[in-house]
Amino acid sequence: MPLRTPFTAEALVTSEGPAQRRAIAKTITLLESTRADHRAQADELLTALLPHTGKSFRLGISGVPGVGKSTFIEALGLYLIGRGHRVAVLTIDPSSTVSGGSILGDKTRMEKLSIDERAYIRPSPSSGTLGGVAEKTREAMLVCEAAGYDIVIVETVGVGQSETAVSGMTDMFVLLQLPNAGDDLQAIKKGVMELADLVVINKADLDKDAATRAQAQITSALRLFGHHGNPAHAHVVHGSHGGHGTAAPEAQWQPKVIQLSALVGTGVDAFWDAVLEFKSVQTANGRLAARREKQALAWMWERIDAGLKQAFRQHPAVRELLPQAIAQVAAGTLPASTAARNLLASQAGQA
Amino acid sequence: MPLRTPFTAEALVTSEGPAQRRAIAKTITLLESTRADHRAQADELLTALLPHTGKSFRLGISGVPGVGKSTFIEALGLYLIGRGHRVAVLTIDPSSTVSGGSILGDKTRMEKLSIDERAYIRPSPSSGTLGGVAEKTREAMLVCEAAGYDIVIVETVGVGQSETAVSGMTDMFVLLQLPNAGDDLQAIKKGVMELADLVVINKADLDKDAATRAQAQITSALRLFGHHGNPAHAHVVHGSHGGHGTAAPEAQWQPKVIQLSALVGTGVDAFWDAVLEFKSVQTANGRLAARREKQALAWMWERIDAGLKQAFRQHPAVRELLPQAIAQVAAGTLPASTAARNLLASQAGQA
Repeated sequence: MPLRTPFTAEALVTSEGPAQRRAIAKTITLLESTRADHRAQADELLTALLPHTGKSFRLGISGVPGVGKSTFIEALGLYLIGRGHRVAVLTIDPSSTVSGGSILGDKTRMEKLSIDERAYIRPSPSSGTLGGVAEKTREAMLVCEAAGYDIVIVETVGVGQSETAVSGMTDMFVLLQLPNAGDDLQAIKKGVMELADLVVINKADLDKDAATRAQAQITSALRLFGHHGNPAHAHVVHGSHGGHGTAAPEAQWQPKVIQLSALVGTGVDAFWDAVLEFKSVQTANGRLAARREKQALAWMWERIDAGLKQAFRQHPAVRELLPQAIAQVAAGTLPASTAARNLLASQAGQA
Repeated sequence: MPLRTPFTAEALVTSEGPAQRRAIAKTITLLESTRADHRAQADELLTALLPHTGKSFRLGISGVPGVGKSTFIEALGLYLIGRGHRVAVLTIDPSSTVSGGSILGDKTRMEKLSIDERAYIRPSPSSGTLGGVAEKTREAMLVCEAAGYDIVIVETVGVGQSETAVSGMTDMFVLLQLPNAGDDLQAIKKGVMELADLVVINKADLDKDAATRAQAQITSALRLFGHHGNPAHAHVVHGSHGGHGTAAPEAQWQPKVIQLSALVGTGVDAFWDAVLEFKSVQTANGRLAARREKQALAWMWERIDAGLKQAFRQHPAVRELLPQAIAQVAAGTLPASTAARNLLASQAGQA
């Protein structure tokens, strides 16, 4: 198939309506292609788009199945559209990396939002490692930003390591919780709670007492576990944003817990107020910019590591020697460090 | 300096007394050398030693500064020597990877144990990354095993990531705690508690009530956080050890909390009884062998990853391009994934 270029970066940025939606879809399809020539074209396009990116607010949302993510995101999306925003919803579904099919990919989950032309909903890339899926989603986020979507929501289900991936590509990470006590302990145990900038107790209308109890418990847990937990929050990458010795500390965001009922439509405005407050605090103290810079560099190194591992495993000499090395190391007849050195030498052509 | 080989693997295994101590020290020094010819000799020696290794019980011990690790390990070491064991004590000091000096390296910390010829005490390797230091310590452990030490204690201070490294090279990971309430929360927060097979509340004589309270709290925390936390415990690597569908479950170790006072010498026997019970349970259910196999393979991959990263960073083309790539990615003028692909291509000679 010859490589067609039906649009340029500029066309994607300036087009509107259905033409732009088609351009976005084609660009993302190009980004997800594994063909080398497509990838080269995608890299070129992405670099051309880059000056038009970064102007959206990037909101990560996670929560266990049943917490009501779709209902919440649809309510939020409609609320934001009503206030003049354009909203893109991207999804990282860790199950898709195993099954090739996405449990979150069904657009009918957000019926009203998906038919609104001010919203763009894209299901999870449906194959590859979690790292690969996350990379495609990061790139799709840039495409949506270049197309003028000023709110990008990246959603993931609260299983596996995908929360860390979403937290690592967004300005703010929101954790949805149910109003019961066991739930938050799981999130603490898995280290997800400490990623959260905001915890939303959804379905609070079901049991107001339980929701209030959960709010108190999670607030107390965040105080214990959340404050210094996330390096992306705890450190400012570069110098000019305070943190020098005894300089006056700038305002710091303290993770919050709020109640909400997406189904009956209460609390979405309070949620958005909290998001805007977060954005304002993080912009003033420089952490929004620092977090993005840190994320971009971490993303670069993550992709380098993945590329190095892939090249290693695909190297003919390594492929030939690896099965025996694994068997010998497992059987205890070859020291692990010696096996590693031998395999590295074989890749380098020194064996 | 010409490479001298004053001993063979066989000599190290069969020698005794001061001659063997010198052979151990020289071997470990050889292992820690960064010279390529030394490393090749070390690999050869290590492979020859391997059939003589694996017969010790490997005990990891961690705890924050001031918890009384040295006093505890000395009391334990003397107790074990009195029961006919030979005890090696190795140390991983994460601070040594920064400063080049070891805060734990002082042999005078264990005065009585260090002069006993049935004990061998080796301070932390004093340079390199934590991964590199951990590798040297793993190799030193094998040398001590080959020399007939049947208990190897690997100690680390409870800061940084060194607990994970120690847990990843030992059969059993013990966490020492002080009898106060804030301490255990820190360990939970950092994910160390879930690594623990046994928690020892040391200095229990100082405040018996506090120690009993801490014991109850940590027991309850282990029930919440410890059980499924450690993959090395939660999964058996290979098939023959049960876990198939509805087969009768074999006995599983449940992490315990005990009180002890190393200074006044109470509780060391109860501690050792718990260790022997752990060893017995883990041997019967196959998890001791599975954990070692899994550790060896993880170690191999960890060293491969480290080697790949090092080769990448040292590649001339990468060194030339990396500073600009980092600057552009940080400034947002080059997509991170494109930068990664460009750098990988430059290493592969395709740029």
